[in-house]
Amino acid sequence: MARRTGRRPGRPDTRAAILAAARAAFAERGFDAASIRTIATAAAVDPALVHHYFGTKEELFRATVAIPIDPAELLPAVLAAGPDGVGERLVRTFLTIWDSPVGTAGLALLRSAVNNEWTARLLREFLVTQVLRRVVEHLDVDPAERALRGALVASQLAGLIMTRYVIRIDPIATADPEHLVTAIGPTVQRYLTGDLTG
Amino acid sequence: MARRTGRRPGRPDTRAAILAAARAAFAERGFDAASIRTIATAAAVDPALVHHYFGTKEELFRATVAIPIDPAELLPAVLAAGPDGVGERLVRTFLTIWDSPVGTAGLALLRSAVNNEWTARLLREFLVTQVLRRVVEHLDVDPAERALRGALVASQLAGLIMTRYVIRIDPIATADPEHLVTAIGPTVQRYLTGDLTG
Repeated sequence: MARRTGRRPGRPDTRAAILAAARAAFAERGFDAASIRTIATAAAVDPALVHHYFGTKEELFRATVAIPIDPAELLPAVLAAGPDGVGERLVRTFLTIWDSPVGTAGLALLRSAVNNEWTARLLREFLVTQVLRRVVEHLDVDPAERALRGALVASQLAGLIMTRYVIRIDPIATADPEHLVTAIGPTVQRYLTGDLTG
Repeated sequence: MARRTGRRPGRPDTRAAILAAARAAFAERGFDAASIRTIATAAAVDPALVHHYFGTKEELFRATVAIPIDPAELLPAVLAAGPDGVGERLVRTFLTIWDSPVGTAGLALLRSAVNNEWTARLLREFLVTQVLRRVVEHLDVDPAERALRGALVASQLAGLIMTRYVIRIDPIATADPEHLVTAIGPTVQRYLTGDLTG
């Protein structure tokens, strides 16, 4: 038996039970309403064990969708430089992630979400609460418009994934990332800070 | 046995053999290079029979992807009024189709394409040769930019489908179509006729 190092992974069936309960709770109630306490109860374990194995509620959520990046770490650098050019910076960061091996995990999640309503709900909750909310929360715009602005950004970036990695329409499928940043950055910029009323 | 009216559908196995051969040819060689003659040879039937059952090469192609609309009929009305406002008209027409029962067929195709490389190739060929090429061919822009402009339009519209019908991110999932036309029309307009070099 191989010697293990680092944090002990816990009993596999306990971890799996917690993950299954968390997946159900996040998909059914949404990220905000789901609680570590009710997830622990559903998995028949102590809440402290959930924290011990998975950390915070955000970290547990990321484990349920098997997304190996943390938007809470990545996004501040994109947003910190202020509203000027935030569209281009967001597209650039997005392509750097999706062109890396992380993109393979993302594609697996997307494929699953397209065919499974349960996974689609988890992906929606992840995008809305972990990504889009963080992107729009500090914008100097009408708060009532924030959800629409976030959803519009999601629509352009989801379509970029579809055309670059899934349907593979040239030249987007093979373009240099900076070429796409130039073409698509202004769209994301307008969705975040521009006039949407025509 | 129910009485049939209208055009006789032909022997089911012959039709199925032609469709299978056509699907393989369009996915493998692409729409332009595939020919009725080689499809007929692969299906072991006379080319005249392919035309008899399915009509033109375009019609045969639409049958292989089970898309019940004809871009060659729909797009001229969108494009005829000239470049001003073509972005909004395209988004409006697109949403009218996708909000109708035709959208269900489209979603089935998209789900299949996401999980099956063969269907993804057919969908790509359909989008590029039947839709995007028609949208960009009469634009008063550098011909070398046409493929990129078409692909960018596809990226925004594919993402609109993903956020409105698949992942269902609000408010895009529930928005009034005209609200989306106002928000997304200018993006499509810029991709078709605007400056893409930043």
